[in-house]
Amino acid sequence: MIGETGGQELRTVQAADGSGAADTGTYCDVRVLTEALAEPLGPEDQTVQSMPDVSPTKWHRAHTTWFFETFVLEKFAPQLPPFDPTYRMLFNSYYEGVGPRYPRTQRGAISRPGAVEVGEYRRAVDAKVVELLASPAGQDPELTGLIQLGLHHEQQHQELLVMDIKHVLSLNPLEPVYRPATAPATGVGGGVGWVDVDGGLVDAGHDGSGFCFDNETPRHRVYLEPFRLGDRLVTCAEWQAFVADGGYQRADLWLSDGWYAVQAQGWQAPLYWHRDGGRWVVHTLSGTRPVLDSEPVCHVSQYEADAYARWAGARLPTEFEWEHAACSAAVAPSRRFDLDALHPSPVTADAHGCLRQMFGECWQWTSSAYLPYPGFAAAPGAVGEYNGKFMSGQMVLRGSSAFTPPGHARATYRNFFPPQSRWPLTGVRLAYSP
Amino acid sequence: MIGETGGQELRTVQAADGSGAADTGTYCDVRVLTEALAEPLGPEDQTVQSMPDVSPTKWHRAHTTWFFETFVLEKFAPQLPPFDPTYRMLFNSYYEGVGPRYPRTQRGAISRPGAVEVGEYRRAVDAKVVELLASPAGQDPELTGLIQLGLHHEQQHQELLVMDIKHVLSLNPLEPVYRPATAPATGVGGGVGWVDVDGGLVDAGHDGSGFCFDNETPRHRVYLEPFRLGDRLVTCAEWQAFVADGGYQRADLWLSDGWYAVQAQGWQAPLYWHRDGGRWVVHTLSGTRPVLDSEPVCHVSQYEADAYARWAGARLPTEFEWEHAACSAAVAPSRRFDLDALHPSPVTADAHGCLRQMFGECWQWTSSAYLPYPGFAAAPGAVGEYNGKFMSGQMVLRGSSAFTPPGHARATYRNFFPPQSRWPLTGVRLAYSP
Amino acid sequence: MIGETGGQELRTVQAADGSGAADTGTYCDVRVLTEALAEPLGPEDQTVQSMPDVSPTKWHRAHTTWFFETFVLEKFAPQLPPFDPTYRMLFNSYYEGVGPRYPRTQRGAISRPGAVEVGEYRRAVDAKVVELLASPAGQDPELTGLIQLGLHHEQQHQELLVMDIKHVLSLNPLEPVYRPATAPATGVGGGVGWVDVDGGLVDAGHDGSGFCFDNETPRHRVYLEPFRLGDRLVTCAEWQAFVADGGYQRADLWLSDGWYAVQAQGWQAPLYWHRDGGRWVVHTLSGTRPVLDSEPVCHVSQYEADAYARWAGARLPTEFEWEHAACSAAVAPSRRFDLDALHPSPVTADAHGCLRQMFGECWQWTSSAYLPYPGFAAAPGAVGEYNGKFMSGQMVLRGSSAFTPPGHARATYRNFFPPQSRWPLTGVRLAYSP
Amino acid sequence: MIGETGGQELRTVQAADGSGAADTGTYCDVRVLTEALAEPLGPEDQTVQSMPDVSPTKWHRAHTTWFFETFVLEKFAPQLPPFDPTYRMLFNSYYEGVGPRYPRTQRGAISRPGAVEVGEYRRAVDAKVVELLASPAGQDPELTGLIQLGLHHEQQHQELLVMDIKHVLSLNPLEPVYRPATAPATGVGGGVGWVDVDGGLVDAGHDGSGFCFDNETPRHRVYLEPFRLGDRLVTCAEWQAFVADGGYQRADLWLSDGWYAVQAQGWQAPLYWHRDGGRWVVHTLSGTRPVLDSEPVCHVSQYEADAYARWAGARLPTEFEWEHAACSAAVAPSRRFDLDALHPSPVTADAHGCLRQMFGECWQWTSSAYLPYPGFAAAPGAVGEYNGKFMSGQMVLRGSSAFTPPGHARATYRNFFPPQSRWPLTGVRLAYSP
Repeated sequence: MIGETGGQELRTVQAADGSGAADTGTYCDVRVLTEALAEPLGPEDQTVQSMPDVSPTKWHRAHTTWFFETFVLEKFAPQLPPFDPTYRMLFNSYYEGVGPRYPRTQRGAISRPGAVEVGEYRRAVDAKVVELLASPAGQDPELTGLIQLGLHHEQQHQELLVMDIKHVLSLNPLEPVYRPATAPATGVGGGVGWVDVDGGLVDAGHDGSGFCFDNETPRHRVYLEPFRLGDRLVTCAEWQAFVADGGYQRADLWLSDGWYAVQAQGWQAPLYWHRDGGRWVVHTLSGTRPVLDSEPVCHVSQYEADAYARWAGARLPTEFEWEHAACSAAVAPSRRFDLDALHPSPVTADAHGCLRQMFGECWQWTSSAYLPYPGFAAAPGAVGEYNGKFMSGQMVLRGSSAFTPPGHARATYRNFFPPQSRWPLTGVRLAYSP
Repeated sequence: MIGETGGQELRTVQAADGSGAADTGTYCDVRVLTEALAEPLGPEDQTVQSMPDVSPTKWHRAHTTWFFETFVLEKFAPQLPPFDPTYRMLFNSYYEGVGPRYPRTQRGAISRPGAVEVGEYRRAVDAKVVELLASPAGQDPELTGLIQLGLHHEQQHQELLVMDIKHVLSLNPLEPVYRPATAPATGVGGGVGWVDVDGGLVDAGHDGSGFCFDNETPRHRVYLEPFRLGDRLVTCAEWQAFVADGGYQRADLWLSDGWYAVQAQGWQAPLYWHRDGGRWVVHTLSGTRPVLDSEPVCHVSQYEADAYARWAGARLPTEFEWEHAACSAAVAPSRRFDLDALHPSPVTADAHGCLRQMFGECWQWTSSAYLPYPGFAAAPGAVGEYNGKFMSGQMVLRGSSAFTPPGHARATYRNFFPPQSRWPLTGVRLAYSP
Repeated sequence: MIGETGGQELRTVQAADGSGAADTGTYCDVRVLTEALAEPLGPEDQTVQSMPDVSPTKWHRAHTTWFFETFVLEKFAPQLPPFDPTYRMLFNSYYEGVGPRYPRTQRGAISRPGAVEVGEYRRAVDAKVVELLASPAGQDPELTGLIQLGLHHEQQHQELLVMDIKHVLSLNPLEPVYRPATAPATGVGGGVGWVDVDGGLVDAGHDGSGFCFDNETPRHRVYLEPFRLGDRLVTCAEWQAFVADGGYQRADLWLSDGWYAVQAQGWQAPLYWHRDGGRWVVHTLSGTRPVLDSEPVCHVSQYEADAYARWAGARLPTEFEWEHAACSAAVAPSRRFDLDALHPSPVTADAHGCLRQMFGECWQWTSSAYLPYPGFAAAPGAVGEYNGKFMSGQMVLRGSSAFTPPGHARATYRNFFPPQSRWPLTGVRLAYSP
Repeated sequence: MIGETGGQELRTVQAADGSGAADTGTYCDVRVLTEALAEPLGPEDQTVQSMPDVSPTKWHRAHTTWFFETFVLEKFAPQLPPFDPTYRMLFNSYYEGVGPRYPRTQRGAISRPGAVEVGEYRRAVDAKVVELLASPAGQDPELTGLIQLGLHHEQQHQELLVMDIKHVLSLNPLEPVYRPATAPATGVGGGVGWVDVDGGLVDAGHDGSGFCFDNETPRHRVYLEPFRLGDRLVTCAEWQAFVADGGYQRADLWLSDGWYAVQAQGWQAPLYWHRDGGRWVVHTLSGTRPVLDSEPVCHVSQYEADAYARWAGARLPTEFEWEHAACSAAVAPSRRFDLDALHPSPVTADAHGCLRQMFGECWQWTSSAYLPYPGFAAAPGAVGEYNGKFMSGQMVLRGSSAFTPPGHARATYRNFFPPQSRWPLTGVRLAYSP
C-alpha cells in the first residue's frame, strides 16, 4: 500500500485526521510551509503572472488566506470585521457562489496589496483562526472539517505556487535561481521492468479513512482486465530517443488535437528543454543544467505522453489501473519531502520487483478523462464548486510530484489538467495489455 | 434488440452486410442518396462554409468520392489516371497519411470545381468502381471491405451535409427553405416515464455481426450499477421551463467550461431558437415556425444538456448505460427514414413502458468522454486515421437522428462531438441512480 | 494634362457630365459593364468571400443595385414597392444612416439570392430607373446627381469586383483562369527617367468641371518644394533586385509597422508571386505565368513601397506632388481600357521625356495619409457617409489601374487603402528632392 | 511665443543647450527626477505591465539607463565592462540595430532585476557617465549630443512612467493612491473664446535654436488659410453635455474606425470615468474623486476628440495651425511644473484674449497624421530608429501635459500616438475655419 513514507518533520494534514482533523499545530505547520516556499522570492517575483494559467506568488498566499476568512471566519466568527472588504472579491478564485471576482487573467495587474501586506493579512487571519480553534467552537466538526479542507486546499496551492514560480523564472533571460542545488543529481538508469497486475471487479475511490476530496468518492466497483504497469517513470534518455526518432515530426503518433498543438506551439521537446550546442539543457529551480539520462522526463503534455506511449508500443494506464496497482502491488517507499530538492529524482538501483516512483517525483498522466464517479454529488453551497464543475475537458493524473507537500498524496488522489498542460510536474508511466 | 425498424425503400449498407458487403446495388443506392440530398440546393448553396465546422455541400459530395478514388481505385485499379490530380489534395479531409491537404477552414474559398463538375467527378468515379466490382477483383474481401467502409463514411457525410446546410441557411435573413414541410408537426406530450435497467457486469461494444466502425471495438466487460433511463427525450416544453426558471443565468447549474461558453457565446436558448414577440420560433429546413411543446429539444450543447439534467434533478446517462439499456430493455420502433421529414418527431401516444425515441430523432448526449475501448487499436495506414486520432476532447452521443440515413444506426454506434457543439441534431435523454 | 485619353467605345460617366450628367445611355453602359465583368464567373465563383476585405461578385452586383434602389427609387419613386424588403439590410455596405446591415465579414455566408436572382434584381431596378429618367422627374438635378454618384459608385465596385475575384481564384490550387490571355506580354524595359517639377504655391483638388467625389474638394492651395518624379513605374526587374538584396530581411529599410507585417505575414515578395524553381511566377486573371522584367510591380503594400523607395535612395511622392505633376508636366497617353487585357502593361519604348504609366496600369502609393482637405464637409444624410468617415488609418493612392473602368480616372482622384493592403492593383512611382 | 514659462527649480535640458548641452548638473537633475517619480512606488508597483502599451516602472528606469550604457558608454568608454551583458537585450526597447530584444508585451513577466537592483544599475552607469563628462572626452560634441538626446529620451520616459503607473493603479479595486492631493481642485469655468489667426505661407518646424528631435525638422514652408482656435481646452462640463446628448450612441458623429472602437471597447465616457450613482467620478493619481466641471477633459482618444469636434460644429486643428498659433498669437504662461500636482488644471479666470492651456495641461489631438516633414532624414545607425520608423498609423498631438517634465515642452514638439490611445494625458482644443 501507499502514500508517502518516511519520517516527516512537518506534521501533515493527512496525519492529523480523525481525532484532530484540524488542530492548531497542523494548521500552523501548513500555513508556515506556504511562507517558507515564498521566502526565497522578492516582492517583484511574487507579483508576476507569466501566462494566464499562472498566478502570482502573493496571490496564492492571499487566496489561501481568503479561503479561511470567507469560509471559516465569516461563518464562525461573523462578528469580526473583514481584514479588507475588497479582498473578498480580489482573492476569490472561481467561486461564483461568493459573488464577483477579479478576472483570473489579470491577477498580474494587481500590485497591491504587496508581499508584505499579504504577510500581514495572513498573520491577522491566522491569529483569528487559532483563537477560534482554541475557543469552544473549535470543536465543532463543521468548523474543523472546513479548516481541514482549507489546509488541503492550501497544500494544493503550495504546489501551484512552486510550479508557477518555476514558469515565471523560466522566461527571464537572467536565468534566476529559486534555490541553489545542494548536490549534483545522479542516477543509475537501467531498463524498465513490468509489474503484472490482476484484473477483475475491483473497488475504486476513497475508502473513507482519513481526508479526501469529494472527487475521490463515492467508492465504486470497476471491472479491469489484467494489465502490466512499468515499474518506473519514463526517463529523459528514453525521451531523447523519441525525439531523435522524429517523434515530434510524425503525425501518425499523435492524437489530432495533439498534432495541432505540436504545430501551433512549435513543440520539439518537453517544456523547459533547450538545445545548448549538441546537448539538451533544462531550466530548473536551481538554474539551467544538462538533462540527466536517468531522471524522469517531466513537463510533458498528455498529448506528448500519449504519443510517446504509442511510439513505445505501449499505452498510458487508466486512472483505475493506476489506483488498483498502487493499492494491490508492492510499492517502493517514496522519498522524503525536502524543501531543498525540488526536482524529480533519477532512477536509483534500490527496490526491484516493485512499483517505483509512484509518489513524490512526477504526476503521471492517465488515459482517463476527469469525470464524476458514479453517484458523485458536489457539496452544497460555494464549497461545492471545489471540484465538480471542472469535470470537463481535463485528464486525470495520478501519484504526486516533488512539489507535492508532505501528507498530501494518496493512492486515490485525482489530479487533473487539460491535456495540453506542460507547466505542472507531469511525467509518464507506461502500461500495456498482455 | 435494436436499431431502426420498418421497411425501407432504399437498401442499406447495414442490410447488405455479410454475403454481399459491398454489392453494386448497395453502392449505387448510397451514392444516389447523397445526390438526392443535394438536389434542392443551388450551386451557391453548395459553395458556402458558414463557420469552420461546416463544410460546403459540394465539398461533401467531392470528398466522399475522393475516398473511393484514393482508397479503392488507387489501390485496385492503379492503372487508371486520376480524375484530376489536384483533387487528391483538395478533397483530403484530414488524412495525414495521404499527404498535404487543403486547410479545413478555407473550404468555402474554393469555387471550382463547381457543383456540376463535382457531379461529373462522382459519375466518373462511380463508373470505375462499378466496373471494378463487376470484375473478378470485385470479390476481393479487402476491396469489398474498403467499399463498405467508404459507404458508411458517405452515410456519415450525408448527415453532415444536411446538418451543415441547415446552418448555412440559418444565417440568411431571407430564411430560405430547403424543402417545404409536408404536414404540420403535432404531438401529444405527456410526462416522462422511467425504465428500470439492471446493472451488473455487462458486455459493451460491437459483437461482430455486421459492419461496425473500429471505435465500437473491442467488445469488453463493464460494471454498471442499476439505473433508470427516461423513456423519451426531453421536450421543448420542458426546456422552456428551464429557460423560464433562469437556467441560462444560474452559474451553479453549469460546468465551469459550460458557464464560460454561455457568457462568451451569449447562449439564451438552443441554437436556432429566436424570440418572436412572446413566443419562441425555430429555424428548420422547412422554414421558421413556432417551437412545438411536444417535440424533442434539439441543437443543444453537452454543456446545456448537463446543466438541464442538474436542474431537473437527474443526470446524463453514460454511454455504457445507454447501450446496455438499448440492448436489454424494450425499445419502441423508430420511425422510417423519410427524405421529406427532416425534423425530429414530437412525442406520440403509442408505445408505453418501453424506451421511445432511441433512434431516428436526436443524438443523445452522454456523460462519457470519447476514449478508446480497452484494447482498441486503429487500423494500419491512412484508413486508421478514421476514428482513433479524434479520441480527445470530445463527448459521446448515442442513438441516431432524423438526419441519419437508413441502415446507419445501431445500438453500439459511438457518435462524438466537442461538448460545445450545437449544430448537430443533439438532444437529451435523462437518467438517474435510484 | 489629365486623365485617360484615347477613344472609348463605351460612353463614360465622366463624358456625360454637365448637360446630361446621368442620361439613360450612360446609365445602361455602366450597368452593362458590371454584368460583362461577372459574365466569365459561375455561380460558385460569385459566392465566395476569400478574406474579410473581399466581397463576393454577386454581392457587388446586388449592392450597386441597392444603391439605386435605396437612394434614388425610395426617394423619387416612393410608391414602388421594394424588390425584396430584406435586401435593404442585406446589401447595405456601411451606411449607418440607412439602418442595420449584414456583417461585412459574413457576406460569403449568404448563398441566396443566387447569381441568377441578382440578375433579376438588377434588371428590375434598371427598368424602374430608366422609366424614371424618361419621366419628367428625370430632369430633376438632385435625381440626376444621385444617379451620377451611383454610377461612379458602381465603377468603383467594378474595379473591386475584379480585384476581389482575382484574390478568390488565387486561393484555388486548380489555378482557375478568369479570361485567357489574348497575347503574350512583352516590353522593352530600360532605366527610369526623372521629370523635374517646379514647386511653389499650387492649387490642389478638383476644379469643379465635371464629376468628382466629395473627398477631392475643396480646391485649396498647397506649398510644394521643387521635386523630381520617376517617369515610369518601378518594374519587376527592379523589385527582384530589391528581393535579391535582402530587402525583406533588413529591418532598417522598414517602417516599424511594416517590419511587423513582414514578419507576421511572412512576406517575401509581392502578393501573387511564387517561386517556381529558380524563377518567380505570378498569379494573374489569365493564369499563372512567369514574372516579366519590364512590367510594373503590382500588389505591394504601402509598407513595401516605402521600404523599396528607401532602399532605392528615393521616396514616395506626396499626393499633392503627384497631382501637381499630373496637371503641369507632360503626360503620356494612357492605354485604352480593354476588357481583354486585365493586367498592367510593360514599359514600352514610346513617349520619352514625359510621365508615363500615370493612369491605367497600377494605382500609385503616395506618402500622404488619407485626410480631409481644408474645409472639407461631407454631404448631409446617408450619402455623406460615402468618403468622409473613412479618413483615418489609410493612405492615398493616385492614378488608376488596369482594372479601373473607362472614364473613371482623373488627376484629382483620391483612392485610399490601409497601408498593409496588397490585393488592389498597387504599384510604385518614385520621387526625390533634388 | 513659446514653451513653458515660470521659474523652475530643476535646471532643464532645454535651458542647458548650447555651450553646455549636456553638463553634469543637467545630467544629474534629469536622472534624479526619474528616481523621484518612482519613489512613491513599491517594488510590486514597479513590476506590473497592465496592458501591452504599458511598461513597468522599473523597466523605464532600466531602459533609460540602457540608453546611456549602449549609445554613450559602449562608444566612448569601450574598455568598461557592461554592468550585466544580459541587460543589453533585456532593456532594448525597439532598436533593431542593437540586436535582439525582449518582447515588449512580456515586460511584465520579468521580475529580476528588481527595483533595488535597477537602482544599482542606474547609479553604476551614472558614475561612469559623470566620470566621462569630467574627462577630456567630455567635451566631444558627439558625446554631449548623445547625452543630450539621452536626457530628452529620459524625459519622455518620465512622462510615460507616470502615464503607465496611472493605468496600472486604475485596475486595482483597492484604488491605490500614488500621491495624495495637496489641495482640492477648483476652477471658474466660463465659455470658450476664439483667437483669430492669420494664414498665409508660414514656416513650420524647429528653427535650430536649442535641442529638438529629428522629427521636428527640417523647417519648411506650409500654406495655411486663416482660422480660429479655441482659447482653452474642452472642459469636462462640455464633455458631459456631449455624453448626455448621446454622443457615444450616434454613428453619424464618428469616423468609421472610431465607431468600431466605441462598440468593440464599449466606450461610454473618457478613460478613467465611472458612474457613481448620479455623477461621474474619475480615477486620478491621488485617488478617485468627482469629475470637476471646469477641468479639461482628459484621456480621450483621437476618435473621441474628432467626434466631439463634429458634434460641437467645429474641428480639430492641424498640427501646423496649432504650431503657427503658438508661435504667432499671445500665449498665456503655463503653470510651473510641480511634482505634487499631477493633474491638468481647471480653467482659471486669468489671462483673457490669449491662448490658454497650450502647455502643461493635456496633449492636444490634431487632425494631422504623423508623417515626415518634406526632406526629413533619420540619423544613421541605431539612434536613427528613434522617430522615423514610427511615422505610420499615428496622429500628432501638440503642446504638453501635466506629466511632461520641466524644459521638455516647445511649440514645435511633435508627440504622437495611435488614434485609439486613451492612456496618455490627451485632451481637445477646437478650431474652425471662419
